[in-house]
Amino acid sequence: MNLLLFISVVCVVALAIAGLFARQVLRAETGNVKMADVAAAIREGAEAFLKRQYSTIAILAIVVAILLFGAYMISGNLEIAWHTAVAFLLGAFLSSLSGIIGMWISVRANLRSAAAATKNAGKSVVLALRGGAVSGLTIVSLSLLGVSLIFYAFGADPQTTPFLIVGFAFGASFIALFAQLGGGIYTKAADVGADLVGKVEAGIPEDDPRNPAVIADLVGDNVGDCAGRGADLFESTAAENIGAMILGVALFPVFGLNGILFPLVMGAFGLIATIVGIFFVTEKLADNEDPMKALYRGFFVTAILSAIFLYATTVWLLNNIWFFYAGLVGIALSIVFVYLTLYYTDHKYRPVKSIAEASKTGPGTNIISGFAVGLETTAISAVAIGVALIVSFKLGELSGVSNGGLYGTAVATVGMLSTCAYILAMDTFGPIVDNAGGIVEMSGESEETQKRISRLDAAGNTTKALTKGYAVGSAALAAFLLFSAYMGEVSNLTHKAFVSVNLALVPVFVGALLGAMLVFLFASLAIRAVGETAQYIIQDVRRQFKDKGILEGTVKPDYASCVDITTKGALKNMILPGFIAIAVPVFVGFALKYEAMAGFLMVATITGVLMALVLNNSGGAWDNAKKYIESGALGGKGSEAHKAAVVGDTVGDPFKDTAGPSLHVLIKLLATLTLVLAPLFI
Amino acid sequence: MNLLLFISVVCVVALAIAGLFARQVLRAETGNVKMADVAAAIREGAEAFLKRQYSTIAILAIVVAILLFGAYMISGNLEIAWHTAVAFLLGAFLSSLSGIIGMWISVRANLRSAAAATKNAGKSVVLALRGGAVSGLTIVSLSLLGVSLIFYAFGADPQTTPFLIVGFAFGASFIALFAQLGGGIYTKAADVGADLVGKVEAGIPEDDPRNPAVIADLVGDNVGDCAGRGADLFESTAAENIGAMILGVALFPVFGLNGILFPLVMGAFGLIATIVGIFFVTEKLADNEDPMKALYRGFFVTAILSAIFLYATTVWLLNNIWFFYAGLVGIALSIVFVYLTLYYTDHKYRPVKSIAEASKTGPGTNIISGFAVGLETTAISAVAIGVALIVSFKLGELSGVSNGGLYGTAVATVGMLSTCAYILAMDTFGPIVDNAGGIVEMSGESEETQKRISRLDAAGNTTKALTKGYAVGSAALAAFLLFSAYMGEVSNLTHKAFVSVNLALVPVFVGALLGAMLVFLFASLAIRAVGETAQYIIQDVRRQFKDKGILEGTVKPDYASCVDITTKGALKNMILPGFIAIAVPVFVGFALKYEAMAGFLMVATITGVLMALVLNNSGGAWDNAKKYIESGALGGKGSEAHKAAVVGDTVGDPFKDTAGPSLHVLIKLLATLTLVLAPLFI
Repeated sequence: MNLLLFISVVCVVALAIAGLFARQVLRAETGNVKMADVAAAIREGAEAFLKRQYSTIAILAIVVAILLFGAYMISGNLEIAWHTAVAFLLGAFLSSLSGIIGMWISVRANLRSAAAATKNAGKSVVLALRGGAVSGLTIVSLSLLGVSLIFYAFGADPQTTPFLIVGFAFGASFIALFAQLGGGIYTKAADVGADLVGKVEAGIPEDDPRNPAVIADLVGDNVGDCAGRGADLFESTAAENIGAMILGVALFPVFGLNGILFPLVMGAFGLIATIVGIFFVTEKLADNEDPMKALYRGFFVTAILSAIFLYATTVWLLNNIWFFYAGLVGIALSIVFVYLTLYYTDHKYRPVKSIAEASKTGPGTNIISGFAVGLETTAISAVAIGVALIVSFKLGELSGVSNGGLYGTAVATVGMLSTCAYILAMDTFGPIVDNAGGIVEMSGESEETQKRISRLDAAGNTTKALTKGYAVGSAALAAFLLFSAYMGEVSNLTHKAFVSVNLALVPVFVGALLGAMLVFLFASLAIRAVGETAQYIIQDVRRQFKDKGILEGTVKPDYASCVDITTKGALKNMILPGFIAIAVPVFVGFALKYEAMAGFLMVATITGVLMALVLNNSGGAWDNAKKYIESGALGGKGSEAHKAAVVGDTVGDPFKDTAGPSLHVLIKLLATLTLVLAPLFI
Repeated sequence: MNLLLFISVVCVVALAIAGLFARQVLRAETGNVKMADVAAAIREGAEAFLKRQYSTIAILAIVVAILLFGAYMISGNLEIAWHTAVAFLLGAFLSSLSGIIGMWISVRANLRSAAAATKNAGKSVVLALRGGAVSGLTIVSLSLLGVSLIFYAFGADPQTTPFLIVGFAFGASFIALFAQLGGGIYTKAADVGADLVGKVEAGIPEDDPRNPAVIADLVGDNVGDCAGRGADLFESTAAENIGAMILGVALFPVFGLNGILFPLVMGAFGLIATIVGIFFVTEKLADNEDPMKALYRGFFVTAILSAIFLYATTVWLLNNIWFFYAGLVGIALSIVFVYLTLYYTDHKYRPVKSIAEASKTGPGTNIISGFAVGLETTAISAVAIGVALIVSFKLGELSGVSNGGLYGTAVATVGMLSTCAYILAMDTFGPIVDNAGGIVEMSGESEETQKRISRLDAAGNTTKALTKGYAVGSAALAAFLLFSAYMGEVSNLTHKAFVSVNLALVPVFVGALLGAMLVFLFASLAIRAVGETAQYIIQDVRRQFKDKGILEGTVKPDYASCVDITTKGALKNMILPGFIAIAVPVFVGFALKYEAMAGFLMVATITGVLMALVLNNSGGAWDNAKKYIESGALGGKGSEAHKAAVVGDTVGDPFKDTAGPSLHVLIKLLATLTLVLAPLFI
């Protein structure tokens, strides 16, 4: 119990520090009236969306909680019924709460970061990163705190309680699904809609205040990247912790409660490492160097500190050095994924260059080569994940602990996610400076300020891409963990030493086929939802442009109308993919039973991870190929190559910001859902 | 043994009829000198490619045969060693032979079909279909004959020989891999190269004789669609027969040799049904109706006859009506796949219409909506495959035969492939009339002839799309069959009642991950190979265009140079994806062993089928969206929507004609390869 107390104290301290960061951000200068006006419009739009989105999700969550309760009641498990329903609601509530807090600060930090940029870049970087850190620390703290509290509340029996709290992870997944889908659809529909009518039809530049969809576009950056990714990684943390705890149950005879609480303790240390890392990004240094260098420094401080803490924790709680090595594998994998993403999406390397080169022969070849690059990224990524799993398993076995192999992979996952809060801070840095850029542009600041902020904006794009790489890598490990936990739970329920699945059984093959199919169909629906929502915006902007005063700049466009239409459209269009994501696994589980479900889960996880890599990285590569050409290469802006590259960027938008990130969430959702419903699939 | 004699006689008769069809085609009129000139150029180009391609493949095949022999020798299995090597070489030889015969006739039938079209359409349809039938009948007959002969030669022991002949299917797969890769890269590189310099840069129409790459483009239709798909379905037939025979071994106590030879007998009946079906497409009827209607009539006659033969064969050999029902499921699935493909790629239905509609807002939205459609096609297809497997399994169980379930799925596959020869005839009809169209265009025939042939050309495009749907559906069933055969063989080798794979084992998960990764990487390499080869052609055409006489029409371009460059490029660029396709499974098998291999195979199969559907159908839908706009919809040719749709078509080309079909081959190759190497993975 002392461990639980320790974790809770660290979380509360981290929350307090998040509060201090928030106060620091709020007290910073807010610039001139024009800036404040733009920021107010963004803030109102974002808050209106969030309010409506979470009202919708809350109703859905309550319905699901009742269904869960009912399903277990019918099968005669009153105890599981209420535990699961309560855990589900708590997970959903805390995930929503951390999303709301993150958004609340980021739509305020954008203005402060913009105002700071009128003077110097360093201040702007620090404000944006600390704004992001509020998100990062809140999300990870609330996730850890939630798991700890519910574990304690449900009796803290090391051998049964971990199974009772899986509902918490499912609740978090459920919120993440809709937050990411809704946010992802919103952000890209607004982006595509604003571009197609603004840039293409009316010929006005990006972020031009005459474009009625411009505020919706800026709101989108927040609801997609900030709230969406936040919910994604809240879910990862919750799912990883609970998955690792379940695997810890198998080692109870060796490690006792220590083995079960190890992931939570290490998560708490990760918070401390993150806080230190954040302080290493100082105004003075950041003012005179590449902003990426400043952010990387903080990241490496966090990673090195995490490694040291990892050593301490494994020695303290597990008293076995091999698990420290296994955890290092996870930290190494997080660094590998960051650099892999960089290689595939930075214009300095072969992939983006080849896409830019292919743009010379038109949009067709641009698309072909970008898609080929996206597919190719799966190769090294899959090998890296495979090597990490095998090595950490081997290290777990070398520990001499019987059945230590799987626990080795669990510790690797814990290691990978120990830097999560810092990564989240870097991620949220992205939309904050992106917004700051928009505010500076729309309020017509000086050339110098615009240049300063655009350097930060470029860094923000990089951090967004990197965190997506990290998110998918950690999703893969977390999903494997949950998959193992599912197999463990099924073993428990069927009273077999281990569950072996006869792959030659037709239902297993069909389950597996449907698992892969769900990934493809879900991606299709998510992509299409963006197109449909964008159509609403296009129509509204066209309607507004009929008033000639808007394009002449004499009449202020009705931003709120676009924001409102995008909100309604995104919420409407998230329902179908969200429904499919839940209905298909439930159907497979009930119709084809637990063995087929194992096939379903394994194949959906694998296909989902690879497809997410394809979508994220092709999208990122197209985006940067365009930016590379815009920087003057291959004819620069306005050339035929540039036109072709713009097409690639448009295609990549829903890939990388809607479908790809939604797939991260999907694979974890499937795992937590099956974990929760497993007793009903036997 | 009487059954083997029966099969052999039917095959010989079918070969004789193919000979008669060939004679009929060769005796038809060859039109004027201009036409003959163009046709001669195509013929020479195709034959030069084939010669060089098969020389390369022959060397590779001999190397592989030696490696196979060596690997088994080292493991001390002299008997398996020489049986496998010999079977491998025979499979490879017969697959190559049937490919060569098919090509030989199709590069002659094109001219005759073109000449006939100057008078009436009916004659042209009949000649093209009979030319195609030469391919279809030869491929299926040689495949059946080869399996029968080698089964007989290797001792015809019902319980051991089926395992000794798996090398035959691997040989067929090996040839198919390179035939489809090389042909697919050739055809699309020539197409894309010709279009990009001819249409886009020089502004001359498609199939214009001034374009130096135009002959290479016409050659491509033959080597890709005709030789490639032929090798694909030769492999399907061989693999399906051998897979079903292996499953038949398990039922030896019930059915004896009958159960093992059942698939071959049914294959022979399928040949008879096809021959009858071909005769139902008559000149007189085809002259006055939509060519698709004529072709469909032949298909339905073949399908109905196959169903009747299926009834007779199940009663005769198995004496159990339930297997007849299982076979009907397979025939039904083939029809479902044909109509599904039609729905997703015909402009009359929602998917293609939505792509055309999306073209109005530019190439970006065209690509997004086409890709979404491609992803969506996996949904109903996967459900259809899943239902077919479950239902046929259930019917097999209902037969009362113990372990009859899996055999039910085998009979379904046999049913699906019974119409294979007719489907192949329809498929080869495509490149023949496509070529005929090119010949008519290049030799400047009358408007009326051009109109007549373009209607046939449109029908050919439809048949090509439909056969791809059929090919992927049958590949899915065949791959499941082979997967089951692998599990059966492993059971045999490990002396377990059934092999259950512990899905929670890390190597199984990693194997599965690498299986899905291979599919993505292979698709990437195939797509990129097209781009690279196209670059060579573009450079050559640009070089030739420096001579102004060519564009003015006064100097004849050097067609042979383009043909030669495309040939070299395609052969060079097929090596890397081909190597990866073989190296990855061999590595996984040896490094991670047979359980991991089961995971690898299952996931690669599933992901491969779905990815092939995405690539084939998105490509087909883009193509037809463009054609729909060209027919006058949404502004017609030259409109902005048309320009956008052209981009989609360019992207779709390597998807649907290179990567997609190569994936069909890949999944069967993986299955036959693991089946052959299984004893080494234990």
